[in-house]
Amino acid sequence: MTEAILVINPNSTAACTEAIDQALDPLRAPDGPEIDCLTLAEGPPGVETQRHADQVIAPLCRLIERHDNRAGAFVIACFSDPGLHAARETTAKPVLGIAESGLLTAMTLGERVGIVSILGAAIPRHRRLIRALGIESRIAGDLALGLGVVALADEARSWPRLVEVGAALRDEHGAEVLVLGCAGMARFRRRLEDALDLPVIDPSQAAVGMAISALRLGYRAAVQR
Amino acid sequence: MTEAILVINPNSTAACTEAIDQALDPLRAPDGPEIDCLTLAEGPPGVETQRHADQVIAPLCRLIERHDNRAGAFVIACFSDPGLHAARETTAKPVLGIAESGLLTAMTLGERVGIVSILGAAIPRHRRLIRALGIESRIAGDLALGLGVVALADEARSWPRLVEVGAALRDEHGAEVLVLGCAGMARFRRRLEDALDLPVIDPSQAAVGMAISALRLGYRAAVQR
Amino acid sequence: MTEAILVINPNSTAACTEAIDQALDPLRAPDGPEIDCLTLAEGPPGVETQRHADQVIAPLCRLIERHDNRAGAFVIACFSDPGLHAARETTAKPVLGIAESGLLTAMTLGERVGIVSILGAAIPRHRRLIRALGIESRIAGDLALGLGVVALADEARSWPRLVEVGAALRDEHGAEVLVLGCAGMARFRRRLEDALDLPVIDPSQAAVGMAISALRLGYRAAVQR
Amino acid sequence: MTEAILVINPNSTAACTEAIDQALDPLRAPDGPEIDCLTLAEGPPGVETQRHADQVIAPLCRLIERHDNRAGAFVIACFSDPGLHAARETTAKPVLGIAESGLLTAMTLGERVGIVSILGAAIPRHRRLIRALGIESRIAGDLALGLGVVALADEARSWPRLVEVGAALRDEHGAEVLVLGCAGMARFRRRLEDALDLPVIDPSQAAVGMAISALRLGYRAAVQR
Amino acid sequence: MTEAILVINPNSTAACTEAIDQALDPLRAPDGPEIDCLTLAEGPPGVETQRHADQVIAPLCRLIERHDNRAGAFVIACFSDPGLHAARETTAKPVLGIAESGLLTAMTLGERVGIVSILGAAIPRHRRLIRALGIESRIAGDLALGLGVVALADEARSWPRLVEVGAALRDEHGAEVLVLGCAGMARFRRRLEDALDLPVIDPSQAAVGMAISALRLGYRAAVQR
Amino acid sequence: MTEAILVINPNSTAACTEAIDQALDPLRAPDGPEIDCLTLAEGPPGVETQRHADQVIAPLCRLIERHDNRAGAFVIACFSDPGLHAARETTAKPVLGIAESGLLTAMTLGERVGIVSILGAAIPRHRRLIRALGIESRIAGDLALGLGVVALADEARSWPRLVEVGAALRDEHGAEVLVLGCAGMARFRRRLEDALDLPVIDPSQAAVGMAISALRLGYRAAVQR
Repeated sequence: MTEAILVINPNSTAACTEAIDQALDPLRAPDGPEIDCLTLAEGPPGVETQRHADQVIAPLCRLIERHDNRAGAFVIACFSDPGLHAARETTAKPVLGIAESGLLTAMTLGERVGIVSILGAAIPRHRRLIRALGIESRIAGDLALGLGVVALADEARSWPRLVEVGAALRDEHGAEVLVLGCAGMARFRRRLEDALDLPVIDPSQAAVGMAISALRLGYRAAVQR
Repeated sequence: MTEAILVINPNSTAACTEAIDQALDPLRAPDGPEIDCLTLAEGPPGVETQRHADQVIAPLCRLIERHDNRAGAFVIACFSDPGLHAARETTAKPVLGIAESGLLTAMTLGERVGIVSILGAAIPRHRRLIRALGIESRIAGDLALGLGVVALADEARSWPRLVEVGAALRDEHGAEVLVLGCAGMARFRRRLEDALDLPVIDPSQAAVGMAISALRLGYRAAVQR
Repeated sequence: MTEAILVINPNSTAACTEAIDQALDPLRAPDGPEIDCLTLAEGPPGVETQRHADQVIAPLCRLIERHDNRAGAFVIACFSDPGLHAARETTAKPVLGIAESGLLTAMTLGERVGIVSILGAAIPRHRRLIRALGIESRIAGDLALGLGVVALADEARSWPRLVEVGAALRDEHGAEVLVLGCAGMARFRRRLEDALDLPVIDPSQAAVGMAISALRLGYRAAVQR
Repeated sequence: MTEAILVINPNSTAACTEAIDQALDPLRAPDGPEIDCLTLAEGPPGVETQRHADQVIAPLCRLIERHDNRAGAFVIACFSDPGLHAARETTAKPVLGIAESGLLTAMTLGERVGIVSILGAAIPRHRRLIRALGIESRIAGDLALGLGVVALADEARSWPRLVEVGAALRDEHGAEVLVLGCAGMARFRRRLEDALDLPVIDPSQAAVGMAISALRLGYRAAVQR
Repeated sequence: MTEAILVINPNSTAACTEAIDQALDPLRAPDGPEIDCLTLAEGPPGVETQRHADQVIAPLCRLIERHDNRAGAFVIACFSDPGLHAARETTAKPVLGIAESGLLTAMTLGERVGIVSILGAAIPRHRRLIRALGIESRIAGDLALGLGVVALADEARSWPRLVEVGAALRDEHGAEVLVLGCAGMARFRRRLEDALDLPVIDPSQAAVGMAISALRLGYRAAVQR
Repeated sequence: MTEAILVINPNSTAACTEAIDQALDPLRAPDGPEIDCLTLAEGPPGVETQRHADQVIAPLCRLIERHDNRAGAFVIACFSDPGLHAARETTAKPVLGIAESGLLTAMTLGERVGIVSILGAAIPRHRRLIRALGIESRIAGDLALGLGVVALADEARSWPRLVEVGAALRDEHGAEVLVLGCAGMARFRRRLEDALDLPVIDPSQAAVGMAISALRLGYRAAVQR
């Protein structure tokens, strides 16, 4: 397959793009599509607010336009799915959002879906997104780690908190499957599955998985009427 | 009251801002707040797509920052409510979106709410917004006039179509109240009410009405936690 | 404006009507409509049960008929919205219910709405009303102070309980905005906002705010077909 | 069984009470409870508006109090379920509403429930009731015969209209079961079933059926806490 | 009445069928239908998993076919309602499921319904069933006793746990009425009502109550189109 | 990858299995998992009723057990998703249902999803499944071709009907994406996309696409607790 899947990290932190890139290795195959991760230079260091999420849309759409020729599908790798519908107007290729893909994929693995968010401020944003998706009745809960960037990077602090929050989603909220509510936490996925005995979804992986299918099957995007 | 209500038309068409401005005259009072309508210079001539709606957010937030000192409340005068939640992060003053305000106000006047949209392409965007608002069960239908800018400006063409679409919402979809799904159609409001014998809401008027209350009562905006 | 907004307290306790009346001062203006608060003589001392709420409807509608000539809009000032739809059949003027108006207004200020009720017995009644409104997905919770009339009047007892219940709605239920689930608690509004750092809505104020807009804009009531 | 089921027709038309009474014959048994139909003298000739529905509640509750000693359960025989929750506060005996019972019973006989109403004005009232019940997703549609009292009594006019409306609910709205949206149409039930090849529920029969079970099983009413 | 109500216990444990049978005594009457309880020989000792629930359907439908001549209605006495819709295709007689009937009956007795389940593994199964029924907004919670068969049979262990779980549903989840989430717990019903001061529904009793009405009124089953 | 994806056609018609098998060719890759299609010998010639759907579950689970060693994931290739949750209890490997996967995948391609069913009798079954999935607000409509097996096999009859039904879903119901509501219609997918200018999903392809991701990413199944 000569068309690539372009995964766009809409924040400007290259380390974050690298983490996403590594997480996608299991989805790479010799005869499969190239999976290419891009950093949005115009993005903020991290998408932490609705304003951040919205302000990346214009440059994100321009980036999509610049790469449209060589792309077979796009993935927007931020759990707020910024610009997902604008991007779908911008290109005729399928565009996947990692929140949408992660949550829908989780719905195939368990009755109730728990979300592990980084910061509490994201939760109202996620709630709007979940209602807009129309899947509210399948969400068990959305709990935040409440860790800043530094604490998050320090596994001695972030790992126990991940387990604590995941266990609360499982035990108090009835979650049967978890979704990591951030693009860059895939390195914890397996360990968290083992610690909690629950399936855990990395949303970037889920979205790229769906993009590979879309590419192989040649899904057309919905026409704007 | 010395604080003003700033109504931002996020498209760059001054004639549209003027139409909004005129529609707000009934809400102006000697002892009431100033109601000041601004045109977003960076906006597109009309907000017709999700991408249009999203790309105005960054300049809209900057405009809000520039005028924050003199404003008591902001109104975003586009029926897609672009940047509503980003704006609420940008200023501590109340921010009203005209779709949100128009639909919620309509819910006080009738059991089922019909929306008269300009173009069919807006309807999926409205549906996402309505689900995100959580008021889906109160919406009777959303029908488009299907008229471009030129036809819309020609009342000999737009007026009969407005009546036709409004009657369909009333008679086939059970709407008891209509909302004009666009910032610039207030001039038709009274005539449409008379033609259809239904209450009709202009969403910009509804939002400014809510902004006046917010100002008089001193509502604080929700804190981002 | 020569037409008045008539605010009807459907309980017979004049002190309650006075408290509502005072709370509406910020909405009075020299050139605005008169805002006149009436006590329903036939009402119970307090509306504490569904039966109370229902039995006031007949005299409430008669009161509306007697005052219809001089009224531009009516507000029913009880958080059960007793007789709201009967009243809308009785007069061609807009009729606002304070629960409906308070909750819809709160939806413009925060993602999830918490309700502070007086007595637990009101909560099933509120739940039916909220489902009938179709806004269930926006309600964070409804918690009762659990205080009788005497304890409620004693601020040394009611104030700490208000803060406690409001904090529980904010911290355990995720409320971003609160609505006072009673007509007579407006005096606590500002203090509670400061104590909790959340917007707090007094529903009578919210309803009168909406009535002022309705009057200025000349909303017609929905026709009974 | 010595306790009676008291079926209260909240309108004052004795002929209507008689029609209800006859419809209940299949539920009478030598060893079963007495089923006694009462006419609410204070009611309007027919409950056609929300105001009608609400104004019967006070005398209805008083009637319940007067007969509470000899009753084992009460049925409110009007498809608006007027005073259902007030009545539940008034007596410790089970109280069934015919709309609630008719709709819930229909849900055991078909996937989607169609309602045949008399007048279009009832439909918004039914919609509020259905949302308050929380069963909106099971309702296929609610269509009105649009016949006044005289036309309704004339079977040459009402029968073909019943078939027409029932067929529309079945064929255009996908109803698998119908509920007659009025207390006095039971005489049409069997014929309509045969004409449409659909199960048809008379709501008074459904409610009395549930009351018999409640009596035999000794259900207690929910306590007002 | 010469037609019988056949109550099928889809597990193969005769003691369980006997417990159901005894619970139905209050619904038996000299002139009422025979109520006959059958054990599904091919069933598992208990229906504890979705696979159990599904594998009983084929023999259950064959049992229905064998007894169709003498039956007026069927009841499937397992709280997972296994084969309810298949059974409805198999016979033209009404078929009631005890979960469906128990939950719908509970909705006439209280605003929010709590479910007392035996094992936690049943809860996701119940959740799917509740969403399929379309009554999710009326469910307060579903909590499991977490007791195996032996512990359940030992009242010294099961009774205090029942009270504990019921009280949690009432006090923490706001349940106003409880449904026993199993066919064989009717012996606890009255005691639990007294201990908790809440109405408690035994679902087998509720379903047979609805079957008696269906038989007396001659409800036809929905046609498969 | 040495583990296979086993796609089980739960009807016994080998031609149907072959059609599914061919449709999966675009998802086969030299380094990808084997995709092996099996026919359930015990199944009916076609799954046309709920009883058919339920009766295949027991042999389906046994087939899964026999092949569990060599499987990495299972797909149940019938649009009623028969036995999906029983199968998930039977194996620790991911199990995908084609209705679930097809509908969730469609939600990434358009706002409202239309379903093209073969027979009208399937629609109530689909409605229960859609509500159980919790995605009801995203479904535009479900329309049946109304063709028997012979007519369906005759493209001169089935093709124009497919276009007619698809166009009705698009134009009257607002569908932006279609799902073929049957396992064996993939050969029409591209042609239908071109005829209607809409994305069209073949659900078996969608499910196998999700299974490939599940396999590559090593998703664990939810534990039965």
